[in-house]
Amino acid sequence: LADRSRVEAELLFANEAFYRAFQAADSQGMAELWSEVSSVVCLHPGWPPIFGREEVLASWGRIFDNAPVSIECRSARAVALADAGFVVCFEVLPQGALIATNYFVREDGKLRLVHHQAGPAPRLPAQEKKESPPPRPN
Amino acid sequence: LADRSRVEAELLFANEAFYRAFQAADSQGMAELWSEVSSVVCLHPGWPPIFGREEVLASWGRIFDNAPVSIECRSARAVALADAGFVVCFEVLPQGALIATNYFVREDGKLRLVHHQAGPAPRLPAQEKKESPPPRPN
Repeated sequence: LADRSRVEAELLFANEAFYRAFQAADSQGMAELWSEVSSVVCLHPGWPPIFGREEVLASWGRIFDNAPVSIECRSARAVALADAGFVVCFEVLPQGALIATNYFVREDGKLRLVHHQAGPAPRLPAQEKKESPPPRPN
Repeated sequence: LADRSRVEAELLFANEAFYRAFQAADSQGMAELWSEVSSVVCLHPGWPPIFGREEVLASWGRIFDNAPVSIECRSARAVALADAGFVVCFEVLPQGALIATNYFVREDGKLRLVHHQAGPAPRLPAQEKKESPPPRPN
């Protein structure tokens, strides 16, 4: 159990690195996050599925070319598995919220992405509103 | 590599069992498919995220209560990992197509679900249209 919470913390850390690279349009950081050993898949919302490391990194390149990306990760929850695990979280974008899963496997000790899927979120969870520092008028 | 294709075949088999249980509204079959050991998560399209085996199985119960479900799995592709793996596929429903990921871990030798996410698909892949047995008029 102590080990599980350590792995969960590692997963959340890797997940934060993913959203930092995403927000910063950091192609090099994104490349370092994705597995070099496993097959990888990426399911961007509204895109056909993308298979393979080169194709997945090229898709991030196209996203990063388009504009500065404003994305915020919220309510991340990690599930630790044997030498792997995943994080489910909300992605807050100017156009609305998505719900996403990021799946990691351990590779030379480091957690690396093998799968990302994001799709429309119904609504942000209620507790997230409370977390916002400034209370909104009406 | 021989081992990888064996695991991919196992993953596709487990994935088919999932869609058989889904189509048949088979709560018992669905319960046997989900992990009893790991934490599990289910992201139904348009629903808040569901965490925990009991809550996930209850969500399938609600889906199965609603009507006979017409769902067809297409273009399934498996990615084998160490003692785990996932399948990405299209789900064809009367309302439209979804794209889904089903993540399995090995538990007492059997592949069991730890995560399901489905969201809107952009369109079905072109080769799937060719596979349909009867050609459609215009």
